[in-house]
Amino acid sequence: MEIRQALSDALQKVRTKSPLIHHITNYVTVNDCANITLAIGASPIMADAIEEAAEIAAIASGLVLNIGTLNARTVASMLKAGQTANEIGIPVIFDPVGAGASDFRNQTTQTLLKTLKFSIIRGNLSEIRYISGLSSNTKGVDAAAIDMSDGIEATIQIAKTCAKQYQTVIAITGAVDVISDGITAYCIENGDAKLSKITGTGCMCNSLIASYTAATGNAMVGAAAGILTMGLAGEVAGKEFSGTGSYRSKIIDVISQLTGIALEKGARIYEA
Amino acid sequence: MEIRQALSDALQKVRTKSPLIHHITNYVTVNDCANITLAIGASPIMADAIEEAAEIAAIASGLVLNIGTLNARTVASMLKAGQTANEIGIPVIFDPVGAGASDFRNQTTQTLLKTLKFSIIRGNLSEIRYISGLSSNTKGVDAAAIDMSDGIEATIQIAKTCAKQYQTVIAITGAVDVISDGITAYCIENGDAKLSKITGTGCMCNSLIASYTAATGNAMVGAAAGILTMGLAGEVAGKEFSGTGSYRSKIIDVISQLTGIALEKGARIYEA
Amino acid sequence: MEIRQALSDALQKVRTKSPLIHHITNYVTVNDCANITLAIGASPIMADAIEEAAEIAAIASGLVLNIGTLNARTVASMLKAGQTANEIGIPVIFDPVGAGASDFRNQTTQTLLKTLKFSIIRGNLSEIRYISGLSSNTKGVDAAAIDMSDGIEATIQIAKTCAKQYQTVIAITGAVDVISDGITAYCIENGDAKLSKITGTGCMCNSLIASYTAATGNAMVGAAAGILTMGLAGEVAGKEFSGTGSYRSKIIDVISQLTGIALEKGARIYEA
Repeated sequence: MEIRQALSDALQKVRTKSPLIHHITNYVTVNDCANITLAIGASPIMADAIEEAAEIAAIASGLVLNIGTLNARTVASMLKAGQTANEIGIPVIFDPVGAGASDFRNQTTQTLLKTLKFSIIRGNLSEIRYISGLSSNTKGVDAAAIDMSDGIEATIQIAKTCAKQYQTVIAITGAVDVISDGITAYCIENGDAKLSKITGTGCMCNSLIASYTAATGNAMVGAAAGILTMGLAGEVAGKEFSGTGSYRSKIIDVISQLTGIALEKGARIYEA
Repeated sequence: MEIRQALSDALQKVRTKSPLIHHITNYVTVNDCANITLAIGASPIMADAIEEAAEIAAIASGLVLNIGTLNARTVASMLKAGQTANEIGIPVIFDPVGAGASDFRNQTTQTLLKTLKFSIIRGNLSEIRYISGLSSNTKGVDAAAIDMSDGIEATIQIAKTCAKQYQTVIAITGAVDVISDGITAYCIENGDAKLSKITGTGCMCNSLIASYTAATGNAMVGAAAGILTMGLAGEVAGKEFSGTGSYRSKIIDVISQLTGIALEKGARIYEA
Repeated sequence: MEIRQALSDALQKVRTKSPLIHHITNYVTVNDCANITLAIGASPIMADAIEEAAEIAAIASGLVLNIGTLNARTVASMLKAGQTANEIGIPVIFDPVGAGASDFRNQTTQTLLKTLKFSIIRGNLSEIRYISGLSSNTKGVDAAAIDMSDGIEATIQIAKTCAKQYQTVIAITGAVDVISDGITAYCIENGDAKLSKITGTGCMCNSLIASYTAATGNAMVGAAAGILTMGLAGEVAGKEFSGTGSYRSKIIDVISQLTGIALEKGARIYEA
């Protein structure tokens, strides 16, 4: 399988190129995003002032936009950084955290979708349903159970349709993760239920995806490698679980010591 | 004792209901608040934009307001979220961090106290002295030694009087914690001096109290269970202490694996 | 050597006096700054609202200004807090994070340098080159390789000249750290390459320097002790390395249990 073979190479490229990843992200998990970006071998910069958003994006190799704790000031900076990123052609990863949960998140999501071209949009099923124009039952920042009741085939279809709609790669993370560029779709079975008991696994996933995509120039490979890295780390760290505090540290431990061989060998990915 | 018997049941309810806890809190310890909310079994959401503060409060089951790193923008959002929370009848927990240390904190505290109805106000003795209209010697965000020199009986009296004044539950955390609804008062002897050597134990306590109160509908039980959980976790984690960095992780480990029986068995609470 | 002999005494003073350190710093590593301030024995307060910046500085014993995630609102607060700190004579530590990387960072850095008197300016070589008026090749928040190609003697000269220029102590952290007050210069060889794989080691260093300087009243001793503490902790924590997540926790563990004897014994500092 093409993507599987690309994993080891992708990790190698991140560590060789150490791409600078500009984040405009929420203040809850921003430290974890910085540490996981360093752990995978890339370099993080967080800068959300309107005065420098474009200039920082211009020196970066990838951009993450995450509306987890959005406000009017940072939304303006997201637009500006995103426009520069689009102009210079670096990948932009969008995480519509809590889309569907408030008018402000919905309007911001719509504005960003209309104004910017994203390489990858990553969210849970409720968030991706929302941007697909489907009914969504977001409760806070977690996917609603009812939104997931249609099963994996429905999720794959949503990913494909949404990817075509926005000409992007859609990554829906959940018990089984689904990524699609509108034509091909992959399912990823790595992961651990305990990942949902620590904050920021989605946000950290964005950082990994951005690092891989910036280094490889391939959004499908980047999305797959990022999600696989997170899922695999959750599995490995979960083997000697003693609570969610140390689990969070171990995930970063595992990623900082991940090898290409371990990533390829551990990946449970299949074409849908 | 009524409260002791309610502890196990309260934990069970948090884990069954997984209440959504809206936080408008400081950016220093916000990650710890999110992780401890997940560890106890509830679900955190942090949202401080004025555009969505009311709407997010409206889907939540509990609200935490913490002025640790307040600014004009977030204070406005606190008022809006708090008003919605009061209207729909969900518990609001207020932590007047550093009240007494600056005019801005004092004025904000007064405005919040005048505008909103709180289920629980939690603070150290200097902060609660301040809102009680007593002399206060807050130095930064820690209680002043001089404020504590009157002993536990004085603290109990302050908690009772202040609870009556604001028709709320007052929780004064310190070497011995005191909670009162104005009629009854409880003292909690759990805890560990090492808890004061990591940041955010008070903030995390707010998240626990909000989770328990949202799940049980009982502010005295919620305050007691939250404070006991934090104190007990500090004790258990402190048994194999190797420094404050790992101590912080272990506290979250312990809480994520806490059982109702361990909580009831470990609780050192008595009616004052 | 004078500075070496002062180390144990400096640590003792931090733990006895527990100086309150006011931080206006970035939201990425602010939690680590608070925890490391507590670990060394001082007391942190983070307060960036313009309404209280001066008042909080006035009750503090030291001030850290860090432009890692600057914005217009917090820059105004930095100026106000800094002016108060200068008036009352407490040490101000400035970290020009990413100076050279954007106009906004450059202009802010210039404004702060013109308006305030700093006890210590700490940065990587690219940042210090920028404020020295030399060519600088800052890429994001890390020093550029090309800026370091002139060797340690050039770095020492830059530190000395820059210290004279701003009548301050300059601390350039890197593989070998250099500090100078314009007359004397010291090189510090402690540290561990793995420190660059976690975010916030520079920021945490600021907190340590501020704590030591506030407690001793001596900026050269404070800068040396802070940098040595960080470097030594990195070495000790690195001896049983299992990944960058646990490494970060261990660094704080080590600092919270550091003794004056271990600090003096472990210090690899020499006059340049």
